[in-house]
Amino acid sequence: MAKIHKTEIRVRYQETDNMGVVYYANYFIWFEVARTEYFRSLGVNYRRLEEKGAYLMVAKASCDYKSPAKYDDIVRIETSLPELKNSSLKFAHKLFVNNRLIATGESLHVFTNRASRPMRIPEEVSRLISSSELSPRR
Amino acid sequence: MAKIHKTEIRVRYQETDNMGVVYYANYFIWFEVARTEYFRSLGVNYRRLEEKGAYLMVAKASCDYKSPAKYDDIVRIETSLPELKNSSLKFAHKLFVNNRLIATGESLHVFTNRASRPMRIPEEVSRLISSSELSPRR
Amino acid sequence: MAKIHKTEIRVRYQETDNMGVVYYANYFIWFEVARTEYFRSLGVNYRRLEEKGAYLMVAKASCDYKSPAKYDDIVRIETSLPELKNSSLKFAHKLFVNNRLIATGESLHVFTNRASRPMRIPEEVSRLISSSELSPRR
Amino acid sequence: MAKIHKTEIRVRYQETDNMGVVYYANYFIWFEVARTEYFRSLGVNYRRLEEKGAYLMVAKASCDYKSPAKYDDIVRIETSLPELKNSSLKFAHKLFVNNRLIATGESLHVFTNRASRPMRIPEEVSRLISSSELSPRR
Repeated sequence: MAKIHKTEIRVRYQETDNMGVVYYANYFIWFEVARTEYFRSLGVNYRRLEEKGAYLMVAKASCDYKSPAKYDDIVRIETSLPELKNSSLKFAHKLFVNNRLIATGESLHVFTNRASRPMRIPEEVSRLISSSELSPRR
Repeated sequence: MAKIHKTEIRVRYQETDNMGVVYYANYFIWFEVARTEYFRSLGVNYRRLEEKGAYLMVAKASCDYKSPAKYDDIVRIETSLPELKNSSLKFAHKLFVNNRLIATGESLHVFTNRASRPMRIPEEVSRLISSSELSPRR
Repeated sequence: MAKIHKTEIRVRYQETDNMGVVYYANYFIWFEVARTEYFRSLGVNYRRLEEKGAYLMVAKASCDYKSPAKYDDIVRIETSLPELKNSSLKFAHKLFVNNRLIATGESLHVFTNRASRPMRIPEEVSRLISSSELSPRR
Repeated sequence: MAKIHKTEIRVRYQETDNMGVVYYANYFIWFEVARTEYFRSLGVNYRRLEEKGAYLMVAKASCDYKSPAKYDDIVRIETSLPELKNSSLKFAHKLFVNNRLIATGESLHVFTNRASRPMRIPEEVSRLISSSELSPRR
């Protein structure tokens, strides 16, 4: 079973809109922050991956909105990695404000090189992900 | 068959990221622009709807990314309304750069009042949507 | 002498642009985060101020960019309140990455009511600000 | 006397905030759009300049906010180039909604190469700027 990593984000005023709640596209920015922190928690520095020429392109992204977030709320994002293939991986997120589930989201990613060609997931990444998956079966 | 409305957007420098392409969350901002223009093309002024107390909340949103958009590209967004129910509607978008399909996306919306309670779609909106669906075949 | 408050921000991928550095407008978003945290450090909850009908409108804002910030950098923002008048106040910010000054900025604000009319700074705010100014002269 | 170029921008929902008006940092994004269009009106394609290795870094930026802009407003931006030096230039902007001045802003830029080193303004740019300044009086 994949590791779950928790990241907390404080809602910025800039992220709110005319309705007095967080604008819907901003949830995808939070997913990105959560992905970076998920990787960091495994020992993967995504910035360094890019410096070495491995880019995590987004192929699909989706979000289900259950209840709005407001300015200054602390949003807890629980991130997992439900799918890991040769050259792609999927992140899943659950967002909470005060322990209430406010949204869920997913994103599918493909590793590419500098020329935007798909490549295998860098070995150091798949190894660190695998070693974090302490399944009960083992 | 639902009307298709075309909106063009010029990619802003702000919308690009470290990879030299448009950041993935920005597609959802473009969808919003396309929705407003879709409504305007039907004679619905969304700003006025909100002033009257009807809000179009986003319940779900998704995007499939096929090929990147770059700074200064002109993105053509073809928007349709494949689903219209009593209190919800769905928008679908196809995005093109130079006639090449670069992404598709969808969003499901619920009409709510100022207190965020679901309400029926304002009658003026459903009437204008319905009258736009008169295909020549009928 | 006014209190200095330090806030740290991790650069998001979304905040970078085509040049591989943080897009210039995003510094103003960081200033906003730093203002909220400055207030919180004084015991002022800006969200609650707005709920009571006091809004901090921006009248002027400026930034001097000395050296770029990059994705995943930790930016330390040192914020002070160099000016406090009857209905306006000024924030000043110094931004550092690894102890190197990368930018400075200022913003002038006016307190207004819900109808956007200027009002005196709420008494609780000016009192908390004043009590935080432990000048050597006293 | 420098040429004035007019650009129109429709306010996006995403650009509004909790106060029901456009968030202050977004004016700087509009300035960027206005700069690109100013250049285009002179025959300078900024995207192509970057592809050739010339980058217009922002050194300073400021904005004076006089009156708010709202969702769906059409903002007219009048842009001029009051200063042109060997390796820097300054843009000035006046923003109008319904012919009412709502903000003014400025930005100072330095041309740099890919390695972020200052360079002279590309000759094609300075020539096109200079030839646009031929007022009928001369």
